[in-house]
Amino acid sequence: MDQSYRIDCLQYANWSEAIFRQFREGGLDAVHVTVTYHENFRETVHIMEKWNRWFERFPELIFQGRTGDDVRKAREIGKTAVFFGFQNPSAIEADIGLVEILHTLGARFMQLTYNNQSLLATGCYEAEDPGVTRMGRQVIKEMNRVGLVVDMSHSAERSTLEAIEISGRPIAITHANPASWHPAFRNKSDDVLRALGQSGGMLGFSTYPHHLHGKSDCTLESFCEMIARTADLMGPERIGIGTDLCTDQPDSVVEWMRVGRWTKEIDYGEGSKSDAGFPPMPNWFRDSRDFDQIEAGLRAVGMNETNIAGVMGNNWLRFFDEQFQPA
Amino acid sequence: MDQSYRIDCLQYANWSEAIFRQFREGGLDAVHVTVTYHENFRETVHIMEKWNRWFERFPELIFQGRTGDDVRKAREIGKTAVFFGFQNPSAIEADIGLVEILHTLGARFMQLTYNNQSLLATGCYEAEDPGVTRMGRQVIKEMNRVGLVVDMSHSAERSTLEAIEISGRPIAITHANPASWHPAFRNKSDDVLRALGQSGGMLGFSTYPHHLHGKSDCTLESFCEMIARTADLMGPERIGIGTDLCTDQPDSVVEWMRVGRWTKEIDYGEGSKSDAGFPPMPNWFRDSRDFDQIEAGLRAVGMNETNIAGVMGNNWLRFFDEQFQPA
Repeated sequence: MDQSYRIDCLQYANWSEAIFRQFREGGLDAVHVTVTYHENFRETVHIMEKWNRWFERFPELIFQGRTGDDVRKAREIGKTAVFFGFQNPSAIEADIGLVEILHTLGARFMQLTYNNQSLLATGCYEAEDPGVTRMGRQVIKEMNRVGLVVDMSHSAERSTLEAIEISGRPIAITHANPASWHPAFRNKSDDVLRALGQSGGMLGFSTYPHHLHGKSDCTLESFCEMIARTADLMGPERIGIGTDLCTDQPDSVVEWMRVGRWTKEIDYGEGSKSDAGFPPMPNWFRDSRDFDQIEAGLRAVGMNETNIAGVMGNNWLRFFDEQFQPA
Repeated sequence: MDQSYRIDCLQYANWSEAIFRQFREGGLDAVHVTVTYHENFRETVHIMEKWNRWFERFPELIFQGRTGDDVRKAREIGKTAVFFGFQNPSAIEADIGLVEILHTLGARFMQLTYNNQSLLATGCYEAEDPGVTRMGRQVIKEMNRVGLVVDMSHSAERSTLEAIEISGRPIAITHANPASWHPAFRNKSDDVLRALGQSGGMLGFSTYPHHLHGKSDCTLESFCEMIARTADLMGPERIGIGTDLCTDQPDSVVEWMRVGRWTKEIDYGEGSKSDAGFPPMPNWFRDSRDFDQIEAGLRAVGMNETNIAGVMGNNWLRFFDEQFQPA
């Protein structure tokens, strides 16, 4: 690839014109946005309707992305292509036919599970992980057929390894970091990362402070050294960025993510009772506008230009090209 | 157009491999199929899921059509392109955002009303016709924007004339005949047909016996003479075929069409208590296999070859080219 593209493979901001302008300031050619956490099919469609209204209101900033070529088009016309994804399979309810329907509506990533057990697999907060379920195997096959990427960012270890194994096409972990760098439940073991890399899958590095070594105090140098080490572990073509940015979201939203409608009690997820809300972002990465910082940081730790371009977007673009079309 | 395409712009058969083979035997490059009568959004999506399974099971016979070029592709590869439509706006419920969602899923025609009053306009069986409603005006504008064609086949006179007037793009009456030939509620006045033709809209001629002069005993000659006269009234570019074929449907389906869930009493629609089911088809048109008969009939009444090609499919194809894309 001659061009150097810039892709953020996970955001869930409080969407507004201001945030779409931040996409442009940060030079983002594409953003994978989370459409739903716990919503059912009809609620998911309603959120897609809201996106349709944003596409209609801000055509000079954003448009809906469906293929890798839409990223190239975005660069050409100076806009950001927005790709849809789900952090939970709640959108397909118990109906495998909705996989194709939602792909037709633009869904390109779907997590088999959020933090809890789902109909398909096990989330990273469950005590037991019995692996991919009967329905999970069927849904992975259908996702492979239509070109909806399996995302295991919030899944437990065994389920993730099984998904890599069962899936006929490479999968993604759109937003997580190596547990060896920072041992959060959500971060991934070297076993998972190695298997992911060897299978042609992709890891997107998260900037969510609970995923960072030192949390909000994490340094850019530490983040970029971790990226360089992961390039050695997985291969420099298997990594990109998936910031997990939640710009402008009120703390009530992090509660919705964690609690949904599955419990009447408060679950603090990666936070705690005394630290229940969104943690402050590290000072080198406020939001979409600071992608230049990451690029400069990678240069400072000695990564070569091809690999930097890969991490900043070219690797995701190749993955989009290969994985978003029907088999 | 050098090629002569063949399009049936309305069927609601009891879909099966046998019927898809009839499409091919009849040389149909495209069929507009009714997806729903009274179904809500979720039920409509479920029927689209069934179509996805048929597309997957019979890829050598059918595929989903979305644009006029899909009709050309169908001819080239020897398959039939299937276009979705609704006979009732129940699929959008009371949510204008579903217009774009359903267009993305492939809907290309939507009737503003079936036989009754809807949220959008008035059906042909109501005693009063107050015209297009407030929501109807908004939805027509949205349908115009996304490229979902307004279909007034089952609508009352004033609502139909207003829809032609209000719509910024030409509309269709996919399946009906002139009332001057056979005065059924569902057939259309010369005023409506003239306004439709002048606005660039399209009429599809129905072979449903209740719409035919002499019903099941209607002759091919009478049908084709009526087409020739309508060409004079509307213009030979404004007419095509929309058979309203319900091949292999049990009589319970005609009851569902007429009664839906809106009444606990039986409504006989165009039938009667003693003639409640599907009437027998005329002997010259059993089903999709008999399109050659219509073509020969048009030749026999002296229509020229260009106009015959227009009626058999080229006029619908031009309309598809112009009307299925966003404004």
